[in-house]
Amino acid sequence: MTMKIKSGQHLMLVGDSVTDMGRIRSPQGTPSEGFAEQLGHGYPRAVCGLLNACYPERLIRVTNTGDSGNNIRALKERWERDVLAHRPDWVGLMIGINDVWRQFDSPHKPFNHVPPEEYESTLRELVARTLPQLSGGMVLMTPFFLEPNRNDPMRRRVDEYGEIVRRTAREYGTLLADTQVAFDRILAHRYSGMIAWDRVHPNLIGATVLARVLLEALDFDYAHRPAGEK
Amino acid sequence: MTMKIKSGQHLMLVGDSVTDMGRIRSPQGTPSEGFAEQLGHGYPRAVCGLLNACYPERLIRVTNTGDSGNNIRALKERWERDVLAHRPDWVGLMIGINDVWRQFDSPHKPFNHVPPEEYESTLRELVARTLPQLSGGMVLMTPFFLEPNRNDPMRRRVDEYGEIVRRTAREYGTLLADTQVAFDRILAHRYSGMIAWDRVHPNLIGATVLARVLLEALDFDYAHRPAGEK
Amino acid sequence: MTMKIKSGQHLMLVGDSVTDMGRIRSPQGTPSEGFAEQLGHGYPRAVCGLLNACYPERLIRVTNTGDSGNNIRALKERWERDVLAHRPDWVGLMIGINDVWRQFDSPHKPFNHVPPEEYESTLRELVARTLPQLSGGMVLMTPFFLEPNRNDPMRRRVDEYGEIVRRTAREYGTLLADTQVAFDRILAHRYSGMIAWDRVHPNLIGATVLARVLLEALDFDYAHRPAGEK
Amino acid sequence: MTMKIKSGQHLMLVGDSVTDMGRIRSPQGTPSEGFAEQLGHGYPRAVCGLLNACYPERLIRVTNTGDSGNNIRALKERWERDVLAHRPDWVGLMIGINDVWRQFDSPHKPFNHVPPEEYESTLRELVARTLPQLSGGMVLMTPFFLEPNRNDPMRRRVDEYGEIVRRTAREYGTLLADTQVAFDRILAHRYSGMIAWDRVHPNLIGATVLARVLLEALDFDYAHRPAGEK
Amino acid sequence: MTMKIKSGQHLMLVGDSVTDMGRIRSPQGTPSEGFAEQLGHGYPRAVCGLLNACYPERLIRVTNTGDSGNNIRALKERWERDVLAHRPDWVGLMIGINDVWRQFDSPHKPFNHVPPEEYESTLRELVARTLPQLSGGMVLMTPFFLEPNRNDPMRRRVDEYGEIVRRTAREYGTLLADTQVAFDRILAHRYSGMIAWDRVHPNLIGATVLARVLLEALDFDYAHRPAGEK
Amino acid sequence: MTMKIKSGQHLMLVGDSVTDMGRIRSPQGTPSEGFAEQLGHGYPRAVCGLLNACYPERLIRVTNTGDSGNNIRALKERWERDVLAHRPDWVGLMIGINDVWRQFDSPHKPFNHVPPEEYESTLRELVARTLPQLSGGMVLMTPFFLEPNRNDPMRRRVDEYGEIVRRTAREYGTLLADTQVAFDRILAHRYSGMIAWDRVHPNLIGATVLARVLLEALDFDYAHRPAGEK
Amino acid sequence: MTMKIKSGQHLMLVGDSVTDMGRIRSPQGTPSEGFAEQLGHGYPRAVCGLLNACYPERLIRVTNTGDSGNNIRALKERWERDVLAHRPDWVGLMIGINDVWRQFDSPHKPFNHVPPEEYESTLRELVARTLPQLSGGMVLMTPFFLEPNRNDPMRRRVDEYGEIVRRTAREYGTLLADTQVAFDRILAHRYSGMIAWDRVHPNLIGATVLARVLLEALDFDYAHRPAGEK
Amino acid sequence: MTMKIKSGQHLMLVGDSVTDMGRIRSPQGTPSEGFAEQLGHGYPRAVCGLLNACYPERLIRVTNTGDSGNNIRALKERWERDVLAHRPDWVGLMIGINDVWRQFDSPHKPFNHVPPEEYESTLRELVARTLPQLSGGMVLMTPFFLEPNRNDPMRRRVDEYGEIVRRTAREYGTLLADTQVAFDRILAHRYSGMIAWDRVHPNLIGATVLARVLLEALDFDYAHRPAGEK
Repeated sequence: MTMKIKSGQHLMLVGDSVTDMGRIRSPQGTPSEGFAEQLGHGYPRAVCGLLNACYPERLIRVTNTGDSGNNIRALKERWERDVLAHRPDWVGLMIGINDVWRQFDSPHKPFNHVPPEEYESTLRELVARTLPQLSGGMVLMTPFFLEPNRNDPMRRRVDEYGEIVRRTAREYGTLLADTQVAFDRILAHRYSGMIAWDRVHPNLIGATVLARVLLEALDFDYAHRPAGEK
Repeated sequence: MTMKIKSGQHLMLVGDSVTDMGRIRSPQGTPSEGFAEQLGHGYPRAVCGLLNACYPERLIRVTNTGDSGNNIRALKERWERDVLAHRPDWVGLMIGINDVWRQFDSPHKPFNHVPPEEYESTLRELVARTLPQLSGGMVLMTPFFLEPNRNDPMRRRVDEYGEIVRRTAREYGTLLADTQVAFDRILAHRYSGMIAWDRVHPNLIGATVLARVLLEALDFDYAHRPAGEK
Repeated sequence: MTMKIKSGQHLMLVGDSVTDMGRIRSPQGTPSEGFAEQLGHGYPRAVCGLLNACYPERLIRVTNTGDSGNNIRALKERWERDVLAHRPDWVGLMIGINDVWRQFDSPHKPFNHVPPEEYESTLRELVARTLPQLSGGMVLMTPFFLEPNRNDPMRRRVDEYGEIVRRTAREYGTLLADTQVAFDRILAHRYSGMIAWDRVHPNLIGATVLARVLLEALDFDYAHRPAGEK
Repeated sequence: MTMKIKSGQHLMLVGDSVTDMGRIRSPQGTPSEGFAEQLGHGYPRAVCGLLNACYPERLIRVTNTGDSGNNIRALKERWERDVLAHRPDWVGLMIGINDVWRQFDSPHKPFNHVPPEEYESTLRELVARTLPQLSGGMVLMTPFFLEPNRNDPMRRRVDEYGEIVRRTAREYGTLLADTQVAFDRILAHRYSGMIAWDRVHPNLIGATVLARVLLEALDFDYAHRPAGEK
Repeated sequence: MTMKIKSGQHLMLVGDSVTDMGRIRSPQGTPSEGFAEQLGHGYPRAVCGLLNACYPERLIRVTNTGDSGNNIRALKERWERDVLAHRPDWVGLMIGINDVWRQFDSPHKPFNHVPPEEYESTLRELVARTLPQLSGGMVLMTPFFLEPNRNDPMRRRVDEYGEIVRRTAREYGTLLADTQVAFDRILAHRYSGMIAWDRVHPNLIGATVLARVLLEALDFDYAHRPAGEK
Repeated sequence: MTMKIKSGQHLMLVGDSVTDMGRIRSPQGTPSEGFAEQLGHGYPRAVCGLLNACYPERLIRVTNTGDSGNNIRALKERWERDVLAHRPDWVGLMIGINDVWRQFDSPHKPFNHVPPEEYESTLRELVARTLPQLSGGMVLMTPFFLEPNRNDPMRRRVDEYGEIVRRTAREYGTLLADTQVAFDRILAHRYSGMIAWDRVHPNLIGATVLARVLLEALDFDYAHRPAGEK
Repeated sequence: MTMKIKSGQHLMLVGDSVTDMGRIRSPQGTPSEGFAEQLGHGYPRAVCGLLNACYPERLIRVTNTGDSGNNIRALKERWERDVLAHRPDWVGLMIGINDVWRQFDSPHKPFNHVPPEEYESTLRELVARTLPQLSGGMVLMTPFFLEPNRNDPMRRRVDEYGEIVRRTAREYGTLLADTQVAFDRILAHRYSGMIAWDRVHPNLIGATVLARVLLEALDFDYAHRPAGEK
Repeated sequence: MTMKIKSGQHLMLVGDSVTDMGRIRSPQGTPSEGFAEQLGHGYPRAVCGLLNACYPERLIRVTNTGDSGNNIRALKERWERDVLAHRPDWVGLMIGINDVWRQFDSPHKPFNHVPPEEYESTLRELVARTLPQLSGGMVLMTPFFLEPNRNDPMRRRVDEYGEIVRRTAREYGTLLADTQVAFDRILAHRYSGMIAWDRVHPNLIGATVLARVLLEALDFDYAHRPAGEK
């Protein structure tokens, strides 16, 4: 099977703080150093490193346009300016944890909650608007919560939003990266505190897990060698 | 084939600025965040991420004790204190670029040059002293120079030191990670400036290349799944 | 019932980061401002404020000697220097979360774990050594974990250490402040994320909960008025 | 008696630097940490902590919109934008010390003085304009001066403004928090320098005094337990 | 009458924060700029400026060795090292406010209080030890409190210490600068808040008042002109 | 003779860096501290200190609106906004050193030079425009150069501009503060390097000299005592 | 032969980071210090120093308007505002390395590449537009790459752009400073790493080489003495 | 004539702030960048640049060990540690301005003055001790003062010390760099303010003048080309 991103294509990763992870908007380093600074220190960095190290014969541009604090409502407002205007070929999208989290850590601020209906309709709208403009495609990534107890009320709520993502991917025929499933496999062996201090923001281990599940959706091959290389 | 590092073992990565890459000596974050800060943003970080994400059922401790500016002479002085005293099970060692580089960028300071004879004898001494104390083993990594022109005088000199590393690995029966060969494969497709601004310090792409060649020496399997996982 | 701390007495609060909470070791402000800076922004601050505001006729000195990251092993090392040498009349002690947490977020570093046997024997030793030197007494505060799921493995472990504290308080006849019980009452109404971002470090709401349970153990009366005040 | 603020209501605390106390306009922490940062380290923080810790079953939002340096003239200018536009249910208002203080520390700048007539008419205007828009109500807090000598000229002047607040509360039927009376009780036992370095800005003890007198006006019950809790 | 300090003499000003006022211990500027940095921005600066501007024909060295927070007990400990070792010809000494202030703002820390008996005996000891080593003489400056109400308990206490200074000056025949009398004259016209935000640390107006009363004790003449100048 | 500035009047000091001397445009301190911060650390500070310390019964407002780098051309542009709009009663004006200095340190930038004709006409225009709006009056201060050698070409040039100031003062009947004469008296006894590191920016000694010559023009009396004071 | 720049003329150096080299846009120092700050620490500084030290009798203004990151496309956009508007007499121009470098370090971002056709046409346009406005003339400086291997692909590409500069200089009759030739002479003796860490940004040695080749084009004479000097 | 410094030799420049000029003791940059940082931004930098750019075939190490504020007394104390211990082949020495300057800007601190007798005897001692240890030789550089008026008292004093340097050079047969003569030639055309803001610390123009006079003493040839270069 061939990895889906072709040489010359642009993969844009969109999301909230899990994507952002301290990316520098105006890096000062040289272009060669700027790679890392602009990509932050989360999964977009691991994705870029693996794509380039394993497929050196393909020129692939990876960009990160995660914004800390974004829920899908805020993301919609900047979608035209921050996503479509940059004409990506592929879009990886992971959004939703803030839509849910505020319902639990700030119940006294209902104006910061995004209910499932609004989440679903906005997600569908964004996908519908974007797909026709992509020469590659979209990878919808489920939001996740690093809480192994499936009866925890916030985990139940995140699962509900994850199901919306799965359904949307199915209906629109996009690729799907099921991050919750991937993390649940890790949580079978590790306590959540080893992956993320607050069960939301993954450390470098969690970033690698996310990169792997995203790349898997793209038929990435770790053993790939450029044609003609011995 | 089974990945060589067992659960409960400690892999220490030793070297110069290519290993160090801004590691924080006293990280302030939580233990979960501290992973990345203590590992810097070079290949040790990628190594730790991949080991943990792919082998969640094994508890493996990865540490970085690279010191910017080190040549093998400086490394020898701190070997007892910084390496042996921490009782690692596995040691990954990459050293030598500063031994050579000063011969070219500071020819007027001969006291900063380490000639091949001293490099070889010191390397053999360190390996001989260390191997008996390891329950795992050693991975010798060649130094590298991201200069594709093999007639460039500094590339020729680095190759000479790399050959010493290969010979030492062979004679002492350690594992070998041939970073120069790995990078030469990348340089067949990419200009060196895309991997390292000064042909010495790899960016995130180069860090992934280094992690891959090191993990390969350890029989790392990207497709590994814990026993019993579907 | 009379509040137990008498005028002229010194209450020292000892612990880890939950007690420390950013206290300034060498405050620059005036003595009047220095109160808050030296007390940090956790429960010691709330304790000091309430004691002074409600009992203005008693001169009570409240100090904070929490050190972020402490487990009971580290605390024991500084007990003579940081606690006994300052000759407090009352000691409030809450320790143990780091003894447990490292078992879950750093399973690969067993040298940072404190098992229950060591926790219990050290706690008993500290209490036995300290009680004879106090003109007032000791308040043992249980460690707590803001996880409502009592089957969560780390919650179970914290409960085990909390039980050690309760037993020790009973056997030595000290006061007890059962912080876990107090928080469980809050968690019946609020999601843990509203009290602490990582289920360990309480925000200002949690700090007030801790202050209340500590003061309750001291027979604090919110409605107290100095004798003779109308 | 039942505490007056109902679940779902929003209490906004408005004033000058005594209210502001270093509140962060754009806090960087997580929502859970942001509580304290946005509330500053004065009485709004203590109010929020006690309300949430004692009444966990009621969701009450507490905000701080104090601005350092404000007199009632400056407050009036921002009233629409900073108070009414946020639609609070309850407003706690303490203003006036700067109206007076400038008359004493800057007699050469008469344009910074607010005379009692202007103070009273503006206060009445703000109350009249605001009351109809509140589903809860208003707590007028007197300004105060931590000077026990009632013949001190600035104390006399502050008392004059405090009397205007009392009169206004009476005439408009709002709640009243008489902070000067509360502090005079403390000053019977403590020298003012222990409460505030400049007799104006209370430290943590004074902040607790202010919180208590405000909560008392709201029929706050320290011994309250949610219905059904044992 | 002739101003008492002769050309070539060294006037050292010793005290607490009122003298210190932000003096820079190791100024970075040129010697010409360093004057002000080493002198701080309190009365020593005004003293140095007036001495040099009015008596340009006399070379007079003015130094500031005030240390913020000093009471007479702390001053005694550094007297040999900070005062006598520098061999001044004249010593201006103002100390005592912290000896008193801590009794009022920190009544719960009696170890920080200096009672009048200790104050007096230490002052007499310092004067007796110092006078024989001075080729010029000593100016004892009373401590002061910018509180016009002489029945305020702290003012009464400061007056008690001021009386000790006056008595000591009389008995040892030193010069006296009665700063409290000088400030009381100002307070007849200005509210204390215009001179010092906390009634202790004078602003630039208060610094000029202090400089004037010190210079007066030295028979300083504002109208002085060097001999032969028209 | 009576000092000319009456109670309630506002003295504004206008000029370049010699006046500015690090004044803080938006001081953070309390109003009492703000005096010094807004006045910088040059002669305006000394003027304010002496006026208030010697004439406490008069309320006099002193402000500093010096801007570093100003020549008379730049000053003219901001005159309406920075001077007249603030309605001072008295204006002290010292300008001209930058008009001259740039002719000597930047001869290659003629667009930064202000020739004497432009200097004189602009000065006359500013004085003519301002005098009718002042209830007090104007003090013209000559620019100065701390170079005792009157044949130095820059000193000769500064003297030429000083003569313009003297002539303008005479013709318009304003007060005159002849700073060059005052400094020449000091330079008879001190090398210029003791007063100013660059012969232009006076240190604290020079600032006191400037304050004295300005106050002398206003009939300031150092021995003044308020009426009725003993 | 006479050095070409006459007294009173203005030489402006235009380019990218090799010219910019950390120049301060708004220097804070005195005009005399500002020379260096505004000139950065690259070749413009050396040019200014040598011109002024060797030809003190000519007033020559040297300015630096290099902007880091500029390629010729970006330079064209600011040419009117940053070059022509300042009416230089002479313009030294070195541009092109970023036009080429991005083709090698960022092949995945083709929108940042400037192909030779666009480079040549833009260069010709700038020269044609500028020459008529100069009373002196233009010095075209070739871009350079400190790579001695003429078969290196990026060196070949830089040589191609250098040839365009030589051709343009010839056709328009401007002066030419062949920096690549000058550096090749140095590289015959020194490894490139001694002159520039990345083969692009010269250190102080390289800056002196650039200054020399530029001054040579202007018929600069190191042995020049002003007329009449012995 | 051949330039005196041979390949492989080490030229150390010793002095005060004129030599130091902000050199970084522990530069962070790469060795190639570290050249400039360690050399400061005064004449040592210009010397190093010209030596390397004009004589690329000779490896010459230039170091700067100037210390701001040094007079010859302070220099003597560190001579063994900072000069001889580093085994230079050539020493350039310029010292004396602080020995004189303090006599003029700090006449009230005689302990900071170095009289001519001490200056001369110390200089002779340093030269006598050093010469035998050098394989190259010494260049004595006169101190200088950028004051064209030879009757200025400080200029006269500096000239006196300069004469001591000339005499010492003559008697010991060292090379001489007469900086005062070189600067006087510049001052015939430029006002001192264009070269140094305080007549002591040269800007970049002055640094170039110093480098030229030092290099001239070493028979430096600006037109030098390596043997065999066309």
